[in-house]
Amino acid sequence: MRIRGEPYRSIFLANDGWTVAVIDQTRLPFAFEVRHLRTTTDVAEAISDMVVRGAPLIGVTAAYGVALGMREDATDAGLARAVDLLGRTRPTAVNLRWALARMADALRSEAPSSRVERAYAEAGRIAEEDVAACAAIGRHGAAIIERLSVAAARRPVNVLTHCNAGWLACVDWGTALAPVYAAHEAGIPVHVYVDETRPRNQGGSLTAFELAGHGISHEVIVDNAGGHLMQRGRIDVCIVGSDRTTATGDVANKIGTYLKALAARDNDVPFYAALPSSTIDWKIRDGVREVPIEERSAREVTHVRGRADNGQVLEVEVVNPGSPVLNPGFDVTPARLVTGLITERGILAASREGLLHLYPERASEAP
Amino acid sequence: MRIRGEPYRSIFLANDGWTVAVIDQTRLPFAFEVRHLRTTTDVAEAISDMVVRGAPLIGVTAAYGVALGMREDATDAGLARAVDLLGRTRPTAVNLRWALARMADALRSEAPSSRVERAYAEAGRIAEEDVAACAAIGRHGAAIIERLSVAAARRPVNVLTHCNAGWLACVDWGTALAPVYAAHEAGIPVHVYVDETRPRNQGGSLTAFELAGHGISHEVIVDNAGGHLMQRGRIDVCIVGSDRTTATGDVANKIGTYLKALAARDNDVPFYAALPSSTIDWKIRDGVREVPIEERSAREVTHVRGRADNGQVLEVEVVNPGSPVLNPGFDVTPARLVTGLITERGILAASREGLLHLYPERASEAP
Repeated sequence: MRIRGEPYRSIFLANDGWTVAVIDQTRLPFAFEVRHLRTTTDVAEAISDMVVRGAPLIGVTAAYGVALGMREDATDAGLARAVDLLGRTRPTAVNLRWALARMADALRSEAPSSRVERAYAEAGRIAEEDVAACAAIGRHGAAIIERLSVAAARRPVNVLTHCNAGWLACVDWGTALAPVYAAHEAGIPVHVYVDETRPRNQGGSLTAFELAGHGISHEVIVDNAGGHLMQRGRIDVCIVGSDRTTATGDVANKIGTYLKALAARDNDVPFYAALPSSTIDWKIRDGVREVPIEERSAREVTHVRGRADNGQVLEVEVVNPGSPVLNPGFDVTPARLVTGLITERGILAASREGLLHLYPERASEAP
Repeated sequence: MRIRGEPYRSIFLANDGWTVAVIDQTRLPFAFEVRHLRTTTDVAEAISDMVVRGAPLIGVTAAYGVALGMREDATDAGLARAVDLLGRTRPTAVNLRWALARMADALRSEAPSSRVERAYAEAGRIAEEDVAACAAIGRHGAAIIERLSVAAARRPVNVLTHCNAGWLACVDWGTALAPVYAAHEAGIPVHVYVDETRPRNQGGSLTAFELAGHGISHEVIVDNAGGHLMQRGRIDVCIVGSDRTTATGDVANKIGTYLKALAARDNDVPFYAALPSSTIDWKIRDGVREVPIEERSAREVTHVRGRADNGQVLEVEVVNPGSPVLNPGFDVTPARLVTGLITERGILAASREGLLHLYPERASEAP
């Protein structure tokens, strides 16, 4: 997608053909910087420190991390070490484990001498598959926006989104924002209400940055405001991403998603989660009971990063000093509140039946 | 209530007997400073700039603002000017207009020569009535917490609150926090989850500051987290304040309150609004349609005030530069989501019948 008119992906190989280049998302929106990752440790740190974030992008970055690991040590022990190091970076995203397992499977049967080449090829395939999946999610989701645009007549379709499930969270297009981009490119007027998404403000920083880069009409709101806007009829549809989706259609996503789903239901606003099927955890049935929720550091709540008047980017303390803090990173929206799941194969009901209708080959795995 | 062991009210007369002293709430929680207000203009600015905030405290401060106005010009014209200036400071809080009307009524029948004395006496009465109302709200609400403590057995009762409806928002005790203070003083163990309450962070700064000052167990959470905690059974009761309550029991309060009420309903958590009856607007029937919602400045969303590592308190920009912002200050929680209203006369159902049962003298006003 575009940044100041230039086409970019969130991850790509540098001109040397092997260094992994990523956009440093901790520096956005105030500075645009590309970071070069040359070792598995570089990649592990980039994932832990959220230089890259978003479930699909984490998976692709980890895959390239394995490829870099093969340059360092292409033995079975080296492979195991790389997979182990990368697997310990973030606990919740299922794509991370999925991508690492796929890389390990592909490489184990390969002779060490050809593992580097094979690893780059496989990581590249994972990236291209993600782009294709996101593009398909965009096409399917744009049909929802197009239908709503008929009812909206000449005014834009008002979309509410939470956190950043845009192209910066993936490789290109994004998940929740892919339908917005696809609708915009098809000439359908859209307006996006962007939840700022405390504690890390991915909405106000990354999603707003993405939408501004594409010239898409949007307004940033605090996380508290979405219910009020729905009550006043100012939202036509909610589209969010998903960090993990259960085999029964429960959606684990950034903390606060559940509150917006409740407001959508209370005001008859359709609520969709957009996700590539790699995000589906076919073994889990009850999201509220079974999805592990990452408890993140207190500092994310007590401190806010921003730009001072003098241009310096720094963290300021915003909570009463000494007051304890609790910081769950995700919540689970029960399937009963989800109008539909937008996947690369199409839109389906948030239920075991809905999921298996489009993914019948998974029937043996789903409980 | 106490700050570092010292008893305080949020507003009081200085030793000279006429200067109005308030705690500068824009400096909390990083600095504790008392501001002296000596003119009506001082008071109007203190209200506009949120040096004082919270519906009850705004009303009391405005009343003292009229008293200061009488020192400047005790004629009918002076009275009208003071009331007009003070009335234009904040649009949503009904207490402001209520307190100004009461002052004007009391002073109009008084000879100009005795208006100063009468004004201070009347403002003092409004303050004492607020303290008495909050203390009564505390007693009634503590009974709810006491009942829940039986079910909780030996663990603390977990209360979620939004924004700051504590003693800093009133003169003493507070509204939503009065039951917490009363329960705590009665030896009932309580733990408070404090919504930070973007955009102005009154929860993380003021409520946390209040609770810490009293040694009450609490944790600050982002506004996104409350639904998740209710889903996991970690909240026993929600208690919030109200900026305006309709004659049918709809509750206008700080933006985001409605989302918490939805989560409470979805998880069978009782949801109470605590309010002095001065906050009830007996003329309004449909809160969602009729309560005017203040749209506040974009800067409250784009910038966050906090303390840098070097101790300096400053504002930092947190939203993608150039992205537009929408900032509604309040939302309306429909009566159907409210378990009960805790008033100075007792707990009542959030309905016309419930309100008129305890306030029968208002029957002719309520539509």
